[in-house]
Amino acid sequence: MKFNPTQALKIALNPASIAVVGASDNPNKIGGRPLAYMARFGFKGVVYPINPQRSEVQGYKTFPSLQALPNTPDVVVIAVPGELAVQAVFECADMGVACCIIMSSGFGESGREGRLQEQKMVERARLTGMRLIGPNSQGMANFGNGAVASFSTMFSEIAHSDGPLGIISQSGAMSVIPYGLLRNRSIGVRHSHATGNDCDVTACELASVVAEDPALKLLILYLEGIPDPWNLAKAAQIARARDLPIVVLKSGRTALGQQAAQSHTGALANEDRTVDAFLKDHGIWRAQNIRELIDAAPLYLQGWRPQGRRLVAISNSGAVCVLTADAAATENMPMLPLLDETQNALKKILPGFATTTNPVDITAALLSNSRLLGDILPPIATDPAADAFLIGIAVAGTGYDLNAFVQDSKNFAQATGKPLVIAASQPVVGDHFKKEGLLVYPTEGEAVQALSNFLSHRELIAAVTKNNPLPPKAVLTVENEKMLDEVQSLSLLKEHFVPVVSHSLCSNLEEALKIFKSWGHAQVVLKGCTKDVSHKTELNLVKLNLDSSEAITSAFESITKSAAKHGVKLEGVIIAKQLKGERELMIGARLDPVFGPVVILGDGGKYVEAMPDVQVLLAPLSRNAVVEAIAKLRIAPLFKGVRGEKGLDLAAFTECALRVSDLISQTDLGITQIDINPVITGAPGIGCKAVDAVIYQGSVKAHELNDPGYVRP
Amino acid sequence: MKFNPTQALKIALNPASIAVVGASDNPNKIGGRPLAYMARFGFKGVVYPINPQRSEVQGYKTFPSLQALPNTPDVVVIAVPGELAVQAVFECADMGVACCIIMSSGFGESGREGRLQEQKMVERARLTGMRLIGPNSQGMANFGNGAVASFSTMFSEIAHSDGPLGIISQSGAMSVIPYGLLRNRSIGVRHSHATGNDCDVTACELASVVAEDPALKLLILYLEGIPDPWNLAKAAQIARARDLPIVVLKSGRTALGQQAAQSHTGALANEDRTVDAFLKDHGIWRAQNIRELIDAAPLYLQGWRPQGRRLVAISNSGAVCVLTADAAATENMPMLPLLDETQNALKKILPGFATTTNPVDITAALLSNSRLLGDILPPIATDPAADAFLIGIAVAGTGYDLNAFVQDSKNFAQATGKPLVIAASQPVVGDHFKKEGLLVYPTEGEAVQALSNFLSHRELIAAVTKNNPLPPKAVLTVENEKMLDEVQSLSLLKEHFVPVVSHSLCSNLEEALKIFKSWGHAQVVLKGCTKDVSHKTELNLVKLNLDSSEAITSAFESITKSAAKHGVKLEGVIIAKQLKGERELMIGARLDPVFGPVVILGDGGKYVEAMPDVQVLLAPLSRNAVVEAIAKLRIAPLFKGVRGEKGLDLAAFTECALRVSDLISQTDLGITQIDINPVITGAPGIGCKAVDAVIYQGSVKAHELNDPGYVRP
Repeated sequence: MKFNPTQALKIALNPASIAVVGASDNPNKIGGRPLAYMARFGFKGVVYPINPQRSEVQGYKTFPSLQALPNTPDVVVIAVPGELAVQAVFECADMGVACCIIMSSGFGESGREGRLQEQKMVERARLTGMRLIGPNSQGMANFGNGAVASFSTMFSEIAHSDGPLGIISQSGAMSVIPYGLLRNRSIGVRHSHATGNDCDVTACELASVVAEDPALKLLILYLEGIPDPWNLAKAAQIARARDLPIVVLKSGRTALGQQAAQSHTGALANEDRTVDAFLKDHGIWRAQNIRELIDAAPLYLQGWRPQGRRLVAISNSGAVCVLTADAAATENMPMLPLLDETQNALKKILPGFATTTNPVDITAALLSNSRLLGDILPPIATDPAADAFLIGIAVAGTGYDLNAFVQDSKNFAQATGKPLVIAASQPVVGDHFKKEGLLVYPTEGEAVQALSNFLSHRELIAAVTKNNPLPPKAVLTVENEKMLDEVQSLSLLKEHFVPVVSHSLCSNLEEALKIFKSWGHAQVVLKGCTKDVSHKTELNLVKLNLDSSEAITSAFESITKSAAKHGVKLEGVIIAKQLKGERELMIGARLDPVFGPVVILGDGGKYVEAMPDVQVLLAPLSRNAVVEAIAKLRIAPLFKGVRGEKGLDLAAFTECALRVSDLISQTDLGITQIDINPVITGAPGIGCKAVDAVIYQGSVKAHELNDPGYVRP
Repeated sequence: MKFNPTQALKIALNPASIAVVGASDNPNKIGGRPLAYMARFGFKGVVYPINPQRSEVQGYKTFPSLQALPNTPDVVVIAVPGELAVQAVFECADMGVACCIIMSSGFGESGREGRLQEQKMVERARLTGMRLIGPNSQGMANFGNGAVASFSTMFSEIAHSDGPLGIISQSGAMSVIPYGLLRNRSIGVRHSHATGNDCDVTACELASVVAEDPALKLLILYLEGIPDPWNLAKAAQIARARDLPIVVLKSGRTALGQQAAQSHTGALANEDRTVDAFLKDHGIWRAQNIRELIDAAPLYLQGWRPQGRRLVAISNSGAVCVLTADAAATENMPMLPLLDETQNALKKILPGFATTTNPVDITAALLSNSRLLGDILPPIATDPAADAFLIGIAVAGTGYDLNAFVQDSKNFAQATGKPLVIAASQPVVGDHFKKEGLLVYPTEGEAVQALSNFLSHRELIAAVTKNNPLPPKAVLTVENEKMLDEVQSLSLLKEHFVPVVSHSLCSNLEEALKIFKSWGHAQVVLKGCTKDVSHKTELNLVKLNLDSSEAITSAFESITKSAAKHGVKLEGVIIAKQLKGERELMIGARLDPVFGPVVILGDGGKYVEAMPDVQVLLAPLSRNAVVEAIAKLRIAPLFKGVRGEKGLDLAAFTECALRVSDLISQTDLGITQIDINPVITGAPGIGCKAVDAVIYQGSVKAHELNDPGYVRP
């Protein structure tokens, strides 16, 4: 092995030489663009066009083949189709190239045949430690050193500027759409890389290397699938260590989107709530769409370190004040009244009909006296009510001293050091503020939302602890999965300290009656015990509220008959104590193929599918994570008690969730799925008990992402 | 009375002459702007500046007083402060002016004193039928005839164009912020009126007159309070009759926003869910913020009459396809696969790795062959899968035939006659499409959301029926409100055909035991009956599941003791049959001061406040409206039955809601509030019964909005 894999990737980001296989003299062809861009963007390294037909391409000396090169290039761009591309990769591996960027399409995104071809290239590359970007990649662009080995049209359309942004995307278009939108806002971009099919280097792995670039202040990722969360966790760790926030736009949020992603980059469909849980655990904000991402981006570049999310707003329009208050309330940003002394200071400056609480309404009096804004800002700057500010200039122009507004706002921002956004719908007004480096949004709604997203992300990052679970460095597959029956499931839980209901498996009626007697005729439940079906209620295999021998006898017979009628084989009939708790909750767990052990908890009972109220968490869980998740449930108020109720035993339920987390996390147990519903939970101090449970076991195998013999689905 | 009030308002929109009291030679002063604008925007009528200091203002012959005018003007703009303004209004009334536009501030928005002054002006105006706009109004602007009697700075900042948009706003800023944003999108605006404090003419009443302008294709309202929904209902009726959609941005959605609105325009705080219900009933779309409103506006101006909300999307980027699919799924816009024959036609045109289902991914192959887009559009145009289309041009420029894309898209739009939106993040690409009249959004997310809002609004309008309830033409106040006890409440319900549980009021234990016996010892409930408190459970005044004389005896004593302990006076103890239904639901009703009778229905039981799941409807209800509302509840699946359950008696519960709707709508009953919880509801055919109820009665008075003696709060 010539290269350490990470080292090779670092070389790919800062290569001394780049060859282009399939070099074209036409700068608008795929094989021509990288050459044109490296010239235009000042790449200082050596460029080797490869084209057997020409001795010169775009002014560069050109070579007939890779073998004909005087030196081994660090990076080779491959812009020839199909089998020729595979051949070129093999040659590069043999030569000791550090990284190939495969632009050619028609591989993994077209189906299994293409996936196998990718596998062949990866295996060959592994022999020397060479890395592969793509195939189906639009290329890599590092504007820090001019290594723009990309064929994107965007780079010839939009004036370039190096800057603090990094973009890594599985899609070519999405590596440059944010680039264009950010450049339109005069934000410089250093990295814009498109990893395509991720056959070897994934977008997440590349992120973990790019995150080390000290010039970056924000890293943006577009992902259609996350096959390797461990790489993203690593990137997040590196980024957090140097306070570099990561924003992810993960598409395929919906079934329709996942289907489209499958045809686009052959992306693996991640379970969406699990993605949410994972990103949150690692301090990564998941933007819902491009607009949200672009609107928030400029806020990251100001060096602000906000301490909270309380907003103070100021405008010359009452309507902007009202709309800002609505938007802030929707975004859960408190707007506290200013101190009395601040308000008194404002009252001395503003007309009597102005509002001085918060939001502060200067009113249209600003038209008569443009000093009003500048005069009220200093007292507001020292008021402790704000973590962030919004200034809304609803209308300005002729009759207003716009330059004063801009200068006053700028001084204010510098004095407070706190985030400040400007809402101004008139382009001419906005441009004045932008010229002085202030952040402008056309409407207060957009300004508040961007601010809120930024502040929430700061909170998310602050909440990341060292104990947050890490995903396994492997893809998990399950074989020979089988369902345990209820008695086996409850026993396994009990063995691992999950409290379960008192119960016993009876092979005949006499046994059941004997146990009923031994329990002092307490109310009981009878349930058919079977490995055949998990939902027993629908098949009439469950009988509740039995409090006499007659009732038990009749229930026992009915269960046996129903089982026979539905062809269900019974292992016996379970007799269990009928528990009267305060609420039926649920705890579930499963092994996600890439995120590993996952726990689901929430409201239980029979409506869990029809009216779900659950939270998804990555295991192993911390006590804190469980308590936080419970607080987000719709039924959260029930834990404290509603209308004179005692509430629910939070401690016991939390403990129970932690035990389940342990069970699903101990891979040697071979547990692949757990469903405990209901977990009957009592008032505080009373505890909770698993009353019904289904557990699946199987043989779990861990694969490296590109294991020989393991072809990604 | 000289004028009919509506006629006077019509004159105000098309005046033959306008005087300005407080006319200024400075075109940037409040009293100067209207003169400058009328000159600039070509007002053909007579303009009379009034200023005792000057004989000429801005080139107009100027008069020292209203009395000195040669003729009575149709409209008088009042730009003098406080008492001078009141005086001018009085003079105008005496002279027979049709309408005053009062720009002066410091009236109703400053408190009760100002409100009383407004009242004085209104009373004087009523004597002749003169109408008042404002005070605190920025003015009225009708670009159709140049009657721009406004002091907004916006009109001197943004190039003007008459067009199919009307904007009416209580706020000055919000009468022109949408104006500016729409003009930036090259959309012409005819009306931009700011009604300020709405002391006489409200924004809603003005809307009912402006809605008659045949030039309009969309009417936008910004409201902070709706004191007169009947006027808005009238406007909506007029607008629907000529297919003019109305979009409302109603701020004060949140408590914080309502507080800010109170200080801004002294707006009455409307209950927000009632506002939603009202607007929906009248086919008015409520935009949540300015961005949403502006993004959707252009869609209304194309003459499209879409039949549904199924989307077909086409892009040269797979990522745009995936993001569009996500956005469509979020917006509940189905994306159905194209017909096999369409797909076969596309497969003949596109490369093998392209996707032809829906979304259609042309892939980056568009760079090599710009004809691909134009070639696939005709087969897609004839496919029945679409009600609307999105074309996403992720990247274009050098190497692409952008003009062909635009022409092909334009032909496609004309051929289908169906809504088409373009997503293009590059301004240069977007501008090409815009120049040809196509609708462009920077991202697919915004495009899909705008399209969805437009299509939803079409559905909303189509769903309006003649039977939709109309609000009372009055403001309702309630005096001497008192609570009925449970027995009185249940009796009132029963009298009006709401089914109630079998029950009886007992003054002593013996009576209770006698009834228990007469009911054959069926399980019963005992409850203390009192007029003092409505929540009885917390005070231990409710005892459930009683099935023996002993239990009843002990419960009776316990209730009597608890009542004594809490100082609650009992009217007796209620014995009621213990009902076992399938679910506890709730039905409530109240009188809204301006919207009139309102019904609330949903999930019941004791968690109705902690975990609300209810729908708010305006009464009187139609059967359809109830069924639709139930379908929107979280518990909707329970009506059909979940996991083998029989479901709930929808017909009986609906009937019950209709009876409650009748009760709250019959004003002669003096009912001001009804809370029935639980309504125990059985399986279909079993019925439902009110088990506990609280009714309030009081003396309800109806006021005209500007009744003499009634000052708005």
